[in-house]
Amino acid sequence: MANPEAKAPRAPAVTLKTPKGTRDWSGHDMLMREEVFKMITDVFKKHGGTPLDTPVFELKEILSGKYGEDSKLIYDLQDQGGELCSLRYDLTVPFARWLAMNNILSVKRYHIAKVYRRDQPAIARGRFREFHQCDFDIAGVYDPMIPDAEVLRIIVEVFEALKLGVTIKLNHRQVLDGMFAVAGVTQDKIRSISSAVDKLDKMSWEDVKKEMVEEKGLEAEVADRIGEYVRHAGTISQTLALLNSKPELVANEQVKRGLDDMTLLATYVDAFGISDKISFDLSLARGLDYYTGLIYEVINQPPKPEEGAASSGKKAKKDDPASQVGSIAAGGRYDNLVGMYGKRQIPCVGISFGVDRIFTILEARRQKEGVKQRRDIDVYVMAFGGKEFTGLLPERMSVVQRLWSAGIRAEFSPKVKPKLPQQFKAAEGVPLGVILGQEELAAGQVRLKKLGQGEAKGGEDESASRDDGKLVSLDDLAEEVKKLLL
Amino acid sequence: MANPEAKAPRAPAVTLKTPKGTRDWSGHDMLMREEVFKMITDVFKKHGGTPLDTPVFELKEILSGKYGEDSKLIYDLQDQGGELCSLRYDLTVPFARWLAMNNILSVKRYHIAKVYRRDQPAIARGRFREFHQCDFDIAGVYDPMIPDAEVLRIIVEVFEALKLGVTIKLNHRQVLDGMFAVAGVTQDKIRSISSAVDKLDKMSWEDVKKEMVEEKGLEAEVADRIGEYVRHAGTISQTLALLNSKPELVANEQVKRGLDDMTLLATYVDAFGISDKISFDLSLARGLDYYTGLIYEVINQPPKPEEGAASSGKKAKKDDPASQVGSIAAGGRYDNLVGMYGKRQIPCVGISFGVDRIFTILEARRQKEGVKQRRDIDVYVMAFGGKEFTGLLPERMSVVQRLWSAGIRAEFSPKVKPKLPQQFKAAEGVPLGVILGQEELAAGQVRLKKLGQGEAKGGEDESASRDDGKLVSLDDLAEEVKKLLL
Repeated sequence: MANPEAKAPRAPAVTLKTPKGTRDWSGHDMLMREEVFKMITDVFKKHGGTPLDTPVFELKEILSGKYGEDSKLIYDLQDQGGELCSLRYDLTVPFARWLAMNNILSVKRYHIAKVYRRDQPAIARGRFREFHQCDFDIAGVYDPMIPDAEVLRIIVEVFEALKLGVTIKLNHRQVLDGMFAVAGVTQDKIRSISSAVDKLDKMSWEDVKKEMVEEKGLEAEVADRIGEYVRHAGTISQTLALLNSKPELVANEQVKRGLDDMTLLATYVDAFGISDKISFDLSLARGLDYYTGLIYEVINQPPKPEEGAASSGKKAKKDDPASQVGSIAAGGRYDNLVGMYGKRQIPCVGISFGVDRIFTILEARRQKEGVKQRRDIDVYVMAFGGKEFTGLLPERMSVVQRLWSAGIRAEFSPKVKPKLPQQFKAAEGVPLGVILGQEELAAGQVRLKKLGQGEAKGGEDESASRDDGKLVSLDDLAEEVKKLLL
Repeated sequence: MANPEAKAPRAPAVTLKTPKGTRDWSGHDMLMREEVFKMITDVFKKHGGTPLDTPVFELKEILSGKYGEDSKLIYDLQDQGGELCSLRYDLTVPFARWLAMNNILSVKRYHIAKVYRRDQPAIARGRFREFHQCDFDIAGVYDPMIPDAEVLRIIVEVFEALKLGVTIKLNHRQVLDGMFAVAGVTQDKIRSISSAVDKLDKMSWEDVKKEMVEEKGLEAEVADRIGEYVRHAGTISQTLALLNSKPELVANEQVKRGLDDMTLLATYVDAFGISDKISFDLSLARGLDYYTGLIYEVINQPPKPEEGAASSGKKAKKDDPASQVGSIAAGGRYDNLVGMYGKRQIPCVGISFGVDRIFTILEARRQKEGVKQRRDIDVYVMAFGGKEFTGLLPERMSVVQRLWSAGIRAEFSPKVKPKLPQQFKAAEGVPLGVILGQEELAAGQVRLKKLGQGEAKGGEDESASRDDGKLVSLDDLAEEVKKLLL
């Protein structure tokens, strides 16, 4: 149908690709993405979450000073006159801006959208420059640790829905920072020592110690004391018992505040029935500066209770795909971020699901299990006849229109006179066929037939195909189709 | 819970706003948006549509040379090293790029996403710089006008689902261009005369003629001949009859090709049962250069058959909100666009729904009808007791956890010892309450109660409230709740 006269003005050959670190979503990937988003939002809604969507770019000044060194990864829009803007880097800063701007004191909001980072992409591991975040946050003043426990419960429900075995590793910033102070780390070094400790899931203790001593100028014995403290993980009760057994820690004000929180949390996660998914891991530190209390990240490995309270500090196996993907969700409490925008501090706690990494895992599972792609059409409407066959196009259109009107997903051949094998081929994977013939139509009837029994071989052999299928009056067709689809 | 010690480093006061021409989506607007997208995608899926998503930015060269004068409205990303990119301007160019890049010969794809134009925003009329497009396109070589008719059918189904009365105004580029040629317009002026004619829905014929003659240098008698031709609209058959009655038009090759298409289309829209929604309006021209055949736009006004074949050419009433919003969907056939990227021409026909304008109309209707916002929570779990009341927090958590596990949307007060009126207030709009009491719990039971009968007044008066509600065992609770929610 291309119009031969309208010669397209041949522009110089363009590079047919998406920009570096970005991708299109179509076919099975896209359907899986929609399915995963649906499962996750269903959980969010169960907990009273309401959706938020913000512009893809924010005023540049809203983003500045929020991401420390990583600010260099922010995408800026070109100055074309008017305001200076940048693409959003995460969904947390837009959320804080929205809370402050609208003076919202309390909300459970979720937000699923793409964020942008000019990072080095690693496509095979699901690391892109344009990627999805999927955040649930609870803002507002509540009694301590109650919303924190609900966020943990949400994490468990999401991964149960996705049928992925996970462990939530958690820690408390006050415990961690207090511990560092007791070990002898000066205030100015706490964040940088914290990020070194955070690498214990990927590096050996020796390497982490080396980094602390040689790169960050910590005394060796301070590093060793840290090593004593942080290389422990277990259930909340186990780790609490361990910490309570060390008088020098309990004596520290900050550690004590953290322990009070964790004691409450132990009760609450019990009540929520999720204790067995949680590992209180003293080596977990999380990079972002704005966390002030509980912090957590989720790995795609069920907890190993037999390892007891000293499972951390081991180098992750390199050949384990789950560990290559890294954490698949992470979050924590950040009580001071909103105050950076407005007059008020609004305490918040939340979780961000790394859905692109989750897709990578689910896709690997799908390929392993060999699950086939569905066809999202219920009925294929076709026609055939002898030598006088006109194609019955308006008749097919009229029948397909009845099905659409009844909410049924239906297709037909977009040809005036389609051949029968063509039609059967186009109907592959579709469960039902409606077959029009001149005679039946004259009696107000069509044939309704379950497909997938080798019709394509039947070819133009009319008599063979005409035998099967059930004669149905046009007025009953939609209802009959619905019965068969149940 | 804001930590008083952690003084947030006060940055210089930032402007708390979203960038010009952009907005946040939350609350009722967001829920309506989700509902509308769901209704529209359900229609798309009924027709075998599959979803596509592309990156928010494309290589700059992909966009260049596609939008003529409007190219100045494209948002560019800053050159931060690496590729030069621009935010997408519509969803059609990314679709054409995707088809060419993946060598896809035939597909029905839909795409709902935001696009970006540095235009003058007009917020009240639903005109933004960041706004949604919602596109359905059929690509591939088919017999003439069959996919075109299906797209028209999709338009009708979408607006039926949204309960909006509409007229699809359509025309054919070949008819129009041929008509201009017959009237005496030279080839180089056809597109600019075409855009002048397109303004007939907003301007009087006199003003349009003035523009053609004074600004575009057309001879007055050529303009008058155009006026004769284009100021007609009616059903496809009526307008066809009119055109066929003019021998000088029928003699023109281009007009003839268009008339053949329109004759087929008349049959097909009859078979699809949508003829009564369509007006074949000879003044419709559409701005975009890339259309090659059928073009159409949708207005929020039911057709007025009594006006017959000369309803166009009237100035729209200024006080009509629908006409202020303008067209709410538009599209057409573009057979040469994909060939600009790849080796192959892939003929396409599609429709783009202006969903932000549609939201404006739906929101106005909602406010007029005074429809209240729903509360998306099914059950509120609460507790009360006498002087010894502990708050029963872990018990409430454990009960709410049972409900979540059963897929029920439930909330509870995030306080250790919440007061009863507080809890009833928080439960406003929630249909069911589960009430915990120490005694009942000891017997493994709770009270299940329909809310919304003035409980808040009951205050702390225990005896009054205890009387109502049904005693239910914890093990049966989820099931009983589900029964009441049906």
